Amino acid sequence: MASTCPLCSGDGGTLVWRGRLMRVVHAGEEADRGFPGFYRVIWNTHVAEFSDLAGTERERCMAAVAVVEQVLREQLQPAKINLAALGNMVPHLHWHVIARFGWDSHFPAPVWAPAQRERDLVQEAAVQGRSEAIAQLLRERLAQAGLD
Amino acid sequence: MASTCPLCSGDGGTLVWRGRLMRVVHAGEEADRGFPGFYRVIWNTHVAEFSDLAGTERERCMAAVAVVEQVLREQLQPAKINLAALGNMVPHLHWHVIARFGWDSHFPAPVWAPAQRERDLVQEAAVQGRSEAIAQLLRERLAQAGLD
Repeated sequence: MASTCPLCSGDGGTLVWRGRLMRVVHAGEEADRGFPGFYRVIWNTHVAEFSDLAGTERERCMAAVAVVEQVLREQLQPAKINLAALGNMVPHLHWHVIARFGWDSHFPAPVWAPAQRERDLVQEAAVQGRSEAIAQLLRERLAQAGLD
Repeated sequence: MASTCPLCSGDGGTLVWRGRLMRVVHAGEEADRGFPGFYRVIWNTHVAEFSDLAGTERERCMAAVAVVEQVLREQLQPAKINLAALGNMVPHLHWHVIARFGWDSHFPAPVWAPAQRERDLVQEAAVQGRSEAIAQLLRERLAQAGLD
């Protein structure tokens, strides 16, 4: 799959941190459609399903997801964090970690459902403006967590 | 929240297995809308976010999710497993574990997106017909995994 998989041939977003097993990206295309607090934890090797990982790998993967979630909670105070590993289109293990807000265009529906209201570009810009601070904090916390 | 939360006051689906920390249910209402391979791992106590759990609790939670995923893969040979903890409507930690098929009404879109095609009731019934076998195997495997 490596030759045709977009997560084997590219980062899958704006790279925030890269470790030996995983990387964390900020999903620019999701920011463009109204979700500036949308990050991904992407397993570096081509594995389709979460249960394809060994137990210790699953633990490290979800420890990274929890770090991203915690940093987004601290920095953005979202109404809710949404976590998802779908992969129907790109079957290479990647976790979406999405900060959701009461004002966002889809809340409380999932980001993949039809929109509930107009976008709030001012609020979106305020979240987007936190991106560099979030990225710096993510790099610190992921290193502290020893997730290499 | 306990008094108004539906996952505090009810099982949240057809109960398959109940442990001290978690339970596993088959989501009947999702079967009714075309997803008979839709299960949930529900944390028993009222916790909103995954990162509210302690590290060892997160590991046990995801070990249960992986058991459910593995049993669905073995029993149903799905095109993909989808995992998600959203909780925008019911902020009580629950993981959706969803077996997806190329013939299902929404594939490869998420189950929350608009439908892609008509439902295939014959294929759905075949998956639904595996429910009891899946439930028995889940109870065995979750007990073996020592997830109490």
